[in-house]
Amino acid sequence: MSLLVVGTVAFDAIETPFGKTDKIVGGAASYIALAASHYTKNMHLVSVIGDDFPQSFVSDLQMRGVNTEGLQVKKGEKSFFWSGRYHNDLNSRDTLDTQLNVLADFNPVVPESAKHAEFLMLGNLMPSIQKRVLDQMKTRPKLVLLDTMNFWMDTAYDDLITNLKYIDVLTVNDSEARQLSGEYSLVKAARSIMQRGPHTVIIKKGEHGALLFNAKEVFFAPALPLEDVFDPTGAGDSFAGGFIGFLESQQRYDFNAMKQALIAGSALASFTVEAFGTQRLSTLSSDELETRIKAFSDLVHYKTL
Amino acid sequence: MSLLVVGTVAFDAIETPFGKTDKIVGGAASYIALAASHYTKNMHLVSVIGDDFPQSFVSDLQMRGVNTEGLQVKKGEKSFFWSGRYHNDLNSRDTLDTQLNVLADFNPVVPESAKHAEFLMLGNLMPSIQKRVLDQMKTRPKLVLLDTMNFWMDTAYDDLITNLKYIDVLTVNDSEARQLSGEYSLVKAARSIMQRGPHTVIIKKGEHGALLFNAKEVFFAPALPLEDVFDPTGAGDSFAGGFIGFLESQQRYDFNAMKQALIAGSALASFTVEAFGTQRLSTLSSDELETRIKAFSDLVHYKTL
Repeated sequence: MSLLVVGTVAFDAIETPFGKTDKIVGGAASYIALAASHYTKNMHLVSVIGDDFPQSFVSDLQMRGVNTEGLQVKKGEKSFFWSGRYHNDLNSRDTLDTQLNVLADFNPVVPESAKHAEFLMLGNLMPSIQKRVLDQMKTRPKLVLLDTMNFWMDTAYDDLITNLKYIDVLTVNDSEARQLSGEYSLVKAARSIMQRGPHTVIIKKGEHGALLFNAKEVFFAPALPLEDVFDPTGAGDSFAGGFIGFLESQQRYDFNAMKQALIAGSALASFTVEAFGTQRLSTLSSDELETRIKAFSDLVHYKTL
Repeated sequence: MSLLVVGTVAFDAIETPFGKTDKIVGGAASYIALAASHYTKNMHLVSVIGDDFPQSFVSDLQMRGVNTEGLQVKKGEKSFFWSGRYHNDLNSRDTLDTQLNVLADFNPVVPESAKHAEFLMLGNLMPSIQKRVLDQMKTRPKLVLLDTMNFWMDTAYDDLITNLKYIDVLTVNDSEARQLSGEYSLVKAARSIMQRGPHTVIIKKGEHGALLFNAKEVFFAPALPLEDVFDPTGAGDSFAGGFIGFLESQQRYDFNAMKQALIAGSALASFTVEAFGTQRLSTLSSDELETRIKAFSDLVHYKTL
């Protein structure tokens, strides 16, 4: 019974209309693990950092039940670094700097203790690296979720398409779903992607919520209307982490469980955007999370007259 | 017990990526009245047409219970005409031609029988004309809903702001809410608009659903993920017509009733976009409408594990 999370643990430097940060902790797997830790303590992390990375963050993950045996620390090397500036509407951003550092020759090694994990979260990474993790699993996980982005559609399309054959759930945003499928309608885009492998597709629409599709059904999780979005970085990763963390905690992966998992993921993402980086996910209490999930439910609930 | 609808009854010529039309029936009040007629038969229409307008459409409205006493027919004059071309994503459009014709000197006259209407729908029109209708009411309606657009914010801002003092509900789309309030956050935008008069604000987000705000609560109606959107013209008007028609049929205007009305409006709008013009609203059966409303409910419903 466990969840294996693969992805980057890195430094970000972020500018938004509301402020800017120095180097802070970021990376897909950092958000995924933190978000998932609000639901499950049975987690393994596979990633790579340099020896410049703060031990305090790693210790925090360990305190949350994350097994970091698979977290490689490269002596004398630097952690992956990304820097970006968001535009005024926060819906688009420019990359200012990308330093691959330890990521350049990252060879993920799944510890023996994680090779039978039942839930596998392949965070956004080069598709060939995601595949190397899949290949190391000794039993086929019950649920494999893969997150990716437009960058890999542009630069590693064939590898990404290959991966789709081996996964259960794909998460992409709306423009990525359109790019990957060549379909404008999200209904058609999801159907086209499902024909390539995954039985379930999640299309993230940011401030407009998220859609969950399988062959027969569709479900929609709204986004909570927020007074302020401070920093969107990591929202999609927090969403995916909450989604799969919830499912692991329930040991379920049927469509009805996924519906509730979609709300859990949306709630966690709504906290992430309230502050820079992983700050809000770190301080979040279970009461706050429960209250927010109730707000999601209330938002769409009406009594028939 | 009745609903008074004011707005344009007109000709449109529409181009979308899927085809183009010759002159077909359009206009805000046409969509509003057709949509509302699926819920209420107690309706008055105040508008103006030329003698070039098809009597068959007017007869159809009458068959649906619409009292057309307030529909002026100008002999020897032409009906209002608008022509537009939608861009590939259907979210934006260019106006190709606007011929005001009978609208140029439209002076709305509310028939005596409609001066006590309890529900008043001020469809998108020049704000000073909307005001002239308000001024003719002998008793203050229980609910006044006003729809407007960015064009009037650019050209008749002061008149529009004045109107806000006399209405209960404003419907605008997201970019219009931002323009009117100067706030990017839709939560803040709605609050700012409510300070100018209406106790309730509806923000239409097209394919991303609609938000309903009052001073204390917020509700969200999703949009149904559609395989194809054929022609978005009249979606907002159909939405408003369904919303107020439902409320008139229930004789209620509390927040919970408005929630359900928002779903009714969203369902009617989802039909409108399936075909050019008013075609789909005209042929729509009550069974189809009920099925669609259930689909809206199912879309966001989940059972807690």
